[in-house]
Amino acid sequence: MAVRGVGIRDVAELAGVSVTTVSHVLNDTEGMRVAPETRARVREAAKTLGYGPNRMAQALRTNRSGLIGLLSEEIATTPHAGRIILGAQNAARAHDLTLVIINTERESSGTSHKDDVQALIDRQVEAVLYATMYHRQVSLPPNLQGIPAVLIDSTDRAGIVPAVVPDEVGGAVAAVTHLVEAGHRRIGFLNNDDDVPATHERLIGFRQVMQQHGLPIDESLIVQAPSETLPGYALAREVLDRPDRPTALFCYNDRMAMGAYRAAAELGLDIPHDLSIVGFDNQELIAANLFPGLTTVALPHYEMGVWAVETLVHLLSGEAEYKLLADRPTRLDCPLVIRGSVAPPRDN
Amino acid sequence: MAVRGVGIRDVAELAGVSVTTVSHVLNDTEGMRVAPETRARVREAAKTLGYGPNRMAQALRTNRSGLIGLLSEEIATTPHAGRIILGAQNAARAHDLTLVIINTERESSGTSHKDDVQALIDRQVEAVLYATMYHRQVSLPPNLQGIPAVLIDSTDRAGIVPAVVPDEVGGAVAAVTHLVEAGHRRIGFLNNDDDVPATHERLIGFRQVMQQHGLPIDESLIVQAPSETLPGYALAREVLDRPDRPTALFCYNDRMAMGAYRAAAELGLDIPHDLSIVGFDNQELIAANLFPGLTTVALPHYEMGVWAVETLVHLLSGEAEYKLLADRPTRLDCPLVIRGSVAPPRDN
Repeated sequence: MAVRGVGIRDVAELAGVSVTTVSHVLNDTEGMRVAPETRARVREAAKTLGYGPNRMAQALRTNRSGLIGLLSEEIATTPHAGRIILGAQNAARAHDLTLVIINTERESSGTSHKDDVQALIDRQVEAVLYATMYHRQVSLPPNLQGIPAVLIDSTDRAGIVPAVVPDEVGGAVAAVTHLVEAGHRRIGFLNNDDDVPATHERLIGFRQVMQQHGLPIDESLIVQAPSETLPGYALAREVLDRPDRPTALFCYNDRMAMGAYRAAAELGLDIPHDLSIVGFDNQELIAANLFPGLTTVALPHYEMGVWAVETLVHLLSGEAEYKLLADRPTRLDCPLVIRGSVAPPRDN
Repeated sequence: MAVRGVGIRDVAELAGVSVTTVSHVLNDTEGMRVAPETRARVREAAKTLGYGPNRMAQALRTNRSGLIGLLSEEIATTPHAGRIILGAQNAARAHDLTLVIINTERESSGTSHKDDVQALIDRQVEAVLYATMYHRQVSLPPNLQGIPAVLIDSTDRAGIVPAVVPDEVGGAVAAVTHLVEAGHRRIGFLNNDDDVPATHERLIGFRQVMQQHGLPIDESLIVQAPSETLPGYALAREVLDRPDRPTALFCYNDRMAMGAYRAAAELGLDIPHDLSIVGFDNQELIAANLFPGLTTVALPHYEMGVWAVETLVHLLSGEAEYKLLADRPTRLDCPLVIRGSVAPPRDN
């Protein structure tokens, strides 16, 4: 692959020594004792592979910086960004590329994103990853179109840039199937009320499972509110106060599920025996710390980060076609994470 | 400052145009219309300041990469890392430096940290920031001693590298003072049982406030367990089941406080009127989503990130003394974040 170039790991492998030893030998690190024959072997391997220790000089010769820019929204407020960064970074490292990260605001006017992209271009990045903090469609800053780019957790309104997003329908199918297989027939869905892909696609998944299993859908059990804890609590109270209350709730996200836990506690409903709950997002801080632990659906942030870098590498080396990828966003699995909030309904 | 060099912002300021315009002019960006007199002004400003658009060529000439490495633990599991990154990145940007981030494992043998440091050195970083995910003492990998470095949220066992940590005593003082000022005299402390600075220093703060206000300390109300939700729940049950239960709890962290909320709910104690609670950490996902919102103490992660970069810049330019800073870690404020979990005790 053209983009990869020769890395220090290749030299280490060829010489049969550690990366650290290669670095010491090629940089003439003071005070490090390396046997003369090892030194010779490392120098020979580096020469064979055309590897020089000064990456910048090398980059200048080959006109490659080895830098990939990652423009990420809100790295300070959600662990989602951290997982995208980690996935992208591990993949970048495997290809001997370095990730330069710039944080950007979520609700920006577009001007700031443009400046942030420019800052990365000024740093001579070879390509840009653009990560949003929730699945949505975006209008890209114009300067992003002059450089190879991949979108993470969003799709390009103009359909030009390749994108990777979560398989929202599949995640909802996994969640609701888990409830149906536990024996639930009367299931409520506390949905988000934003006009975003996750709202619509998780509802599609919900309906799909109910229909597949021949279960009636009570439309009054599909309720919507902002996807926060308090609205989740209010919606849960609404459907659970009814005499024909559902035996299980599928919640749009873990925060709404946290509200449903509170509603259940107030009504004296034991989770999971009186009420089963499944969330979405796998926000560890919530899901793992509720009583009982919340069964939920994980978003593939780490995997999207890996996919994006791998795809960039393929695109840069000409092994993948840009247009083909952009036409149809890649959807990655949202797996179920089972904890303790689902059990068969009592009357089953 | 020697480290800073001339940046694109300087050129923009001198020419009286935006950074983007400077970039377009100096890079001859296609399809961008810039008035000829503006072009001339930008070129003149760049010439005056000796600024070239190709940063790598410039770095090679001046032997400066403009890169700062940040070795961070667990960026994928806690939003703390995100805030450190954001602070460091904003400060780096203001000094025209670029942050290269490497994630590392928490409980590593030291070997992995050494390799991670080497990876940054291989990338020609000028200096390294080393961020841990909780306040502790660390033994640094030997290769970190050959390059300017600053520790974030930890101190160097050898006392060589400058460090910035949270003012744990001050944070605890703020929390307990808030309870005392609300009228509480009988206050329990659910403490961590790990031998880490926060455990000892938050206890010092707790005792200090009680003594200052002439309040008796009931040692049986100072209890310890692992700093997770379930142990926090168990400790809270232990002290709240007593007939002479405290009217307020200071919790080592928000997760233990979340456990205390559950205990209070089970015992029919209303928060804040029957029981006031203050946490520590300001984990938004927990603190803002509990009913009522949890009053807690914020850790200065963003501020530590900023401080670390500013200090590196001063060190590199010779404006600060390395040894002086390393001898005494800098402690940053942990401010109180007031939500809804504290009220005067009923019997007051």
